[in-house]
Amino acid sequence: MTDVSPILSTADDNLTSSLERLFELVRIPSISTDPAYKAECRKAAEWLVRTLESLGFAASVRDTAGHPMVVAHHDAATKDAPHVLFYGHYDVQPVDPLNLWENDPFEPAVKDIGGGRQVITGRGTADDKGQLMTFVEACRAYKAVNGSLPVRVTILFEGEEESGSPSLKPFLDANADELKADYALVCDTSMWDRDTPAIAAALRGLVGEEITITAADRDLHSGLFGGAAANPIHILTDILAGLHDETGRVTLAGFYDGVEETPANIKASWETLGRTAEAFLGEVGLSIPSGEKGRSVLEQTWARPTAEVNGIIGGYTGDGFKTVIAAKASAKVSFRLVGEQDPKAVRETFRNYVRSKIPADCSVEFHEHGASPAIQLSYDSPVLTKAKNALSEEWPKPAVVIGMGGSIPIVGDFQKMLGMDSLLVGFGLTDDRIHSPNEKYDLQSFHKGIRSWIRILDALAAK
Amino acid sequence: MTDVSPILSTADDNLTSSLERLFELVRIPSISTDPAYKAECRKAAEWLVRTLESLGFAASVRDTAGHPMVVAHHDAATKDAPHVLFYGHYDVQPVDPLNLWENDPFEPAVKDIGGGRQVITGRGTADDKGQLMTFVEACRAYKAVNGSLPVRVTILFEGEEESGSPSLKPFLDANADELKADYALVCDTSMWDRDTPAIAAALRGLVGEEITITAADRDLHSGLFGGAAANPIHILTDILAGLHDETGRVTLAGFYDGVEETPANIKASWETLGRTAEAFLGEVGLSIPSGEKGRSVLEQTWARPTAEVNGIIGGYTGDGFKTVIAAKASAKVSFRLVGEQDPKAVRETFRNYVRSKIPADCSVEFHEHGASPAIQLSYDSPVLTKAKNALSEEWPKPAVVIGMGGSIPIVGDFQKMLGMDSLLVGFGLTDDRIHSPNEKYDLQSFHKGIRSWIRILDALAAK
Repeated sequence: MTDVSPILSTADDNLTSSLERLFELVRIPSISTDPAYKAECRKAAEWLVRTLESLGFAASVRDTAGHPMVVAHHDAATKDAPHVLFYGHYDVQPVDPLNLWENDPFEPAVKDIGGGRQVITGRGTADDKGQLMTFVEACRAYKAVNGSLPVRVTILFEGEEESGSPSLKPFLDANADELKADYALVCDTSMWDRDTPAIAAALRGLVGEEITITAADRDLHSGLFGGAAANPIHILTDILAGLHDETGRVTLAGFYDGVEETPANIKASWETLGRTAEAFLGEVGLSIPSGEKGRSVLEQTWARPTAEVNGIIGGYTGDGFKTVIAAKASAKVSFRLVGEQDPKAVRETFRNYVRSKIPADCSVEFHEHGASPAIQLSYDSPVLTKAKNALSEEWPKPAVVIGMGGSIPIVGDFQKMLGMDSLLVGFGLTDDRIHSPNEKYDLQSFHKGIRSWIRILDALAAK
Repeated sequence: MTDVSPILSTADDNLTSSLERLFELVRIPSISTDPAYKAECRKAAEWLVRTLESLGFAASVRDTAGHPMVVAHHDAATKDAPHVLFYGHYDVQPVDPLNLWENDPFEPAVKDIGGGRQVITGRGTADDKGQLMTFVEACRAYKAVNGSLPVRVTILFEGEEESGSPSLKPFLDANADELKADYALVCDTSMWDRDTPAIAAALRGLVGEEITITAADRDLHSGLFGGAAANPIHILTDILAGLHDETGRVTLAGFYDGVEETPANIKASWETLGRTAEAFLGEVGLSIPSGEKGRSVLEQTWARPTAEVNGIIGGYTGDGFKTVIAAKASAKVSFRLVGEQDPKAVRETFRNYVRSKIPADCSVEFHEHGASPAIQLSYDSPVLTKAKNALSEEWPKPAVVIGMGGSIPIVGDFQKMLGMDSLLVGFGLTDDRIHSPNEKYDLQSFHKGIRSWIRILDALAAK
């Protein structure tokens, strides 16, 4: 590693102009879900291209069937330096209801919110314009001091992240050679808390299934048929109730194949984070962990698979009462996967279990709603260790390697389509109100975010 | 018993004019649910009063908050004869969609439908104008031949049966002394089949409950919270699945208190009816009885209590998929009761069971949707035996005493408010299409219905 203090100082000195540039980007209302803002999305992409070009990147706006991508390339100072792909997105969420905003969502400002905190207000400040600009401004400081970047950098900024990324896979597919790097840097996540940076290393996968059970060929009167005719709601509730045993484990045969125990040192580090069941569940009005017994809530939500009923419907559900035996009942069920669990195998095991519970005169239909395996990055790869140490230098508390309960599709896409792992580092905070009125990004997140990337890039370049 | 053959012959001879009178009544579109037909309802009531007066009844139209009642009285030939209250209703269902009717619903006609069957077409022919007129015309034949009636008769014709009978209870309450008889004759049910008359002696009761389980104070993301947060759908399905054991019995403590086994001779008579599971369930696309094991479908639906989920809803139930853990889930559950089961006790036992399954950090709300005990008339009371023998004289096959899976509220009201049991005899057939387009009443039902009441009245008068 080199001495990065001149670069950090430059970043500090330039913070005001860095902020001004972020403000310029935030002022462009690049709402991807609303066709009325199509031109604004392109404007944001063009602004990014100009900005990256001014830093010496070979950058271009790349058309897709939807909003354009921004792709940019910059060589490293040395030939054998690693090659990273940095990912962020320039599109933002809609701003309704506008009357709930204390400040104009597209006129950013720095605001003192007390407790020594200053925040940048505006739509997209945290998700994801502020975050992606930490990386751009880190590159700027490097270029200003060294005239070069320590690693080879390819940048991919997407303009459809908030609308389901319809163009992303075709784009990765068509440009795989150009985009493939040694690994990706993804900056769209949060810190553990204001003092503790976090790297996400485990993302749960997902299998979505919908089952519809049909019994009689019409709705029946429960007076005439009750006690003799099959009730599909009974069959369904029996199936769903049977998915878990009394210890909270999923009962499907072979469900835990490919699930590894989390390394003891990682579990121990999670213990120190102080996220008790009371604290975690207390925020949503609960207090008792309901999942697998004998595991912390962090383990339950980051490192253990689940079976969860997300929706159920059958029979009469309006006001009042109707003594009907329904013809059909259905449920949406999802499985969160970890480790090496095979989505296909989980789906098939579930279907076999369901079929085994359907009486011979009833039937079941299945509908598939997506399947993605878990992403399990090494908890101690060299890249992760370098980033962890770099972050720990910058922040008051050491960086923690965490799991995430949900999936970030881009990470799976990078792994599947470009064959590269991702390093997930971001500086959001849980009170950033992304997707809501009064979104903000802490000034500290922006400032120390820039400094963090300077340190990480330096660490990644080191042998 | 006396020789009723002259009276039967008179009824036979007068069939054409009996039919003409029924036609007059059917031509009045007394649709109680549609305010546009208010005057027609009164017209039907007035027509009935005139008709009964012409037979020597002291009859009157009695105003209510809704459509009027018809009340009429006629003495018996002898002072010690029993006193019966005959109940029927003169209101009919709406006729939409009109274009599906092959004949004008209010222009009755006799139609040959092949197989030796002639039917009377028109709205209300079976439900209930044709049925109530069988009794009126039986009285007419009696008066023509004997100049008197063998029993004391009070008649109550209601005009709101098809709209929930809102005025009935207040009217019974206000006129209890006038209406109370030794027992009621209710003519609004069906035969077992075209050759076999039926008397309904057991009507199941009903308890309706709605439960809503609340877990977190908002809908949660199943990625962030899945595996740790309570899912109210899981709690609900667990509760509902636990309501039955593997033999189909309801598991609630004390649920079968007050449930008696059906007498062996009654069960044996049901066996002869040939309603196999295949035949009964086959009509609705099923084949395997799903209720209590080891009992026939007739026993299951007539003489055994049930717990049935009539509706369930929770979480995301629209198109596609949403990885949500719902805040709430709810179900509508009904219990069909038999014998002496206590609706209040069943409700309380159910609620206690549900409460015992709710985690300490979740909550449940209950909503009551009605409660009525079962009606269990004696299978071998003198009145029932007399009616059964009288019916068996008239029809090709002996009368059967059956149960009914649902309730007929008027029977409970008579029992509770006037302290009298009912004898349920009717001549409808399952293909009468009541409440649907092309309602009809078999000419045989009308003709032999009149003859049946002549025989029953005679039998009831006998010591």
